[in-house]
Amino acid sequence: MPDRIPDDSVGLVTPQSAHFDTPLQLESGRVLPRYDLVYETYGELNQERSNAVLICHALSGDHHVAGYHSAEDKKPGWWESCIGPGKPIDTRRFFVVCNNNLGGCKGSTGPISMNPDTGKPFGPDFPIVTVRDWVDSQASLADRLGIRTWAAVVGGSLGGMQALQWTISYPERVRHAVVIAAASRLSSQNIAFNEVARQAIMTDPEFHEGHYYEHNVIPRRGLMLARMLGHITYLSDAAMRDKFGRELKEGKLNFGFDVEFEIESYLRYQGQSFVERFDANTYLLMTKALDYFDPARAYRDNLSAALAEVEAKFFVASFTTDWRFSPARSREIVKALLDGDKDVSYAEIESVQGHDAFLMPIPYYINVFGSYMRRVAAEVI
Amino acid sequence: MPDRIPDDSVGLVTPQSAHFDTPLQLESGRVLPRYDLVYETYGELNQERSNAVLICHALSGDHHVAGYHSAEDKKPGWWESCIGPGKPIDTRRFFVVCNNNLGGCKGSTGPISMNPDTGKPFGPDFPIVTVRDWVDSQASLADRLGIRTWAAVVGGSLGGMQALQWTISYPERVRHAVVIAAASRLSSQNIAFNEVARQAIMTDPEFHEGHYYEHNVIPRRGLMLARMLGHITYLSDAAMRDKFGRELKEGKLNFGFDVEFEIESYLRYQGQSFVERFDANTYLLMTKALDYFDPARAYRDNLSAALAEVEAKFFVASFTTDWRFSPARSREIVKALLDGDKDVSYAEIESVQGHDAFLMPIPYYINVFGSYMRRVAAEVI
Repeated sequence: MPDRIPDDSVGLVTPQSAHFDTPLQLESGRVLPRYDLVYETYGELNQERSNAVLICHALSGDHHVAGYHSAEDKKPGWWESCIGPGKPIDTRRFFVVCNNNLGGCKGSTGPISMNPDTGKPFGPDFPIVTVRDWVDSQASLADRLGIRTWAAVVGGSLGGMQALQWTISYPERVRHAVVIAAASRLSSQNIAFNEVARQAIMTDPEFHEGHYYEHNVIPRRGLMLARMLGHITYLSDAAMRDKFGRELKEGKLNFGFDVEFEIESYLRYQGQSFVERFDANTYLLMTKALDYFDPARAYRDNLSAALAEVEAKFFVASFTTDWRFSPARSREIVKALLDGDKDVSYAEIESVQGHDAFLMPIPYYINVFGSYMRRVAAEVI
Repeated sequence: MPDRIPDDSVGLVTPQSAHFDTPLQLESGRVLPRYDLVYETYGELNQERSNAVLICHALSGDHHVAGYHSAEDKKPGWWESCIGPGKPIDTRRFFVVCNNNLGGCKGSTGPISMNPDTGKPFGPDFPIVTVRDWVDSQASLADRLGIRTWAAVVGGSLGGMQALQWTISYPERVRHAVVIAAASRLSSQNIAFNEVARQAIMTDPEFHEGHYYEHNVIPRRGLMLARMLGHITYLSDAAMRDKFGRELKEGKLNFGFDVEFEIESYLRYQGQSFVERFDANTYLLMTKALDYFDPARAYRDNLSAALAEVEAKFFVASFTTDWRFSPARSREIVKALLDGDKDVSYAEIESVQGHDAFLMPIPYYINVFGSYMRRVAAEVI
């Protein structure tokens, strides 16, 4: 934690946990008989229970979206830039909820959880979960918290896909959907990158077909490679050029295979530190959820038809140098919504930071996002 | 080989080998005391020795650039689309030479060659070679073949970098340089992809620090991952969409980690077949040659200054959907040449195929490339 908690932070926060005994029917056909969801909340639920905002996290995110867990924390939650007093999701007005998704590795039931049937971690036996499954589990959490209707469901990247799915699965329970730097489905190239990441993990000899916990090892090399590759797709070419260029770590070529360019050093560090804080089986599950998400599939690839019944109003945003989910992908969503005469605001935000931009305090972004959320607040408070 | 060799193929060809005892001083400071270069030639060297064209290969290429090695060959050389009677590099007019680069794995001295000092393969002890080193070794081959001046030095991708370097290292020995789908240096993002590929190979437990030959294994998983990743960067997003889309191999989701999408099947196949025909140490060396290439570095990043002394005329070509070496990168080269009042023709070719386009028989490309080469032929024949 910084010496003094900034005034615009939610401050010290504590995760909570909810246990569910009602079986969850999964899209795969399998059933999860019981599960836990870890979540955090910030702000106060109003008397009318009308000011709740659900934040959905992306691939490597979790429930700790803002604030600090302890005085020792060096870093706040992953979306501190957008959530807090006076920020776009203003915690003086909204009651904010974010849970770690099922299949995750930060407290909600997932591959590292104990399988009560075997007394060992689920590992690869944890069922493949989809965006629709997550939304269903989030609906159970909403029930538990007494939230009938979300003022807004909000997410970036894979989180944006959850926001979109909410409006399809539970049209009457979402007033506004905020879909940032997302797509209505992965492209072939997106799937290709995920597949290389999965192969990196699954061909690591220490993967042991997912049962690495029992061998007291982790598929460190594979998970590191997956994360390095992911990072390339999160940054734009321009951002990498601005940040690293062709700078040499020691100022000269060494004609060897140790780190030479700054970008190599950055990627290795990102890969290595990720291994310490993330589970490989969870990584695999998250990439599958991404690959599978495709609400238009059931409508002969007609996204307008898939979104015909949504009732939410939308704020869609994209970033000019995001090549993972480019502005064109966001415009597909906007077009499909307009086809059905839905209420949609769209912002294409100039930024060099690529996909990562959705996490950054870019003034124009904070501004339009904040404006939209003030409109949401005005309706419910 | 097809049932009948097409009329526009150079037909059956036989590799040759040249041994060099004159030590090669490498850019790294190390010396290669002796080496072999394997090469192929097509067409006839004319009396004036003025019609020789050098083809330079890219990362995974070799000396077998056109024609067939035997009646059993199913596939011709890697640039059959552009080399042969009546093709852009018309073997009725030109004497075509292409050698496997030093450090390669197809017959020229490289990591799999016997190190005479140890009686074992060089492996990781083979020195890191650069584009400049390759050009120097190609100059020795030219001397051996009695070729004082190339009518043209031609290459795509890493091959285009060699063509560019030829005009800098030996300005008086190159009449024309053809630089296709290349760049004057890698971007930070390009280096990042190479670094992930290298880490995939080097962290494979069967890499054994490059001494895998002695263990009778190969770093199969790492090399497969490197190739899968490479393939993503060779294809455009649009080409992948057109070719694979989100098609499912079995027509339905299986909720498992076996191949589901067509793109996964394609990438795994490409990765697995590459392992059978390429050497991991060579792959590492080739990526380093790419990373290091940067002729402007010695001129304070001023490419115009680096190209001030070139005498060759240039044909530079790029492809609209190539995101590995985008048209913008080719235009940097064109601009630097124009700064020095050099003679340069530039074609930006509309194509969906991404970086791979330079190997494809795209009509407009074949047309402009052919026109330029006819101009070259008219000068020398």
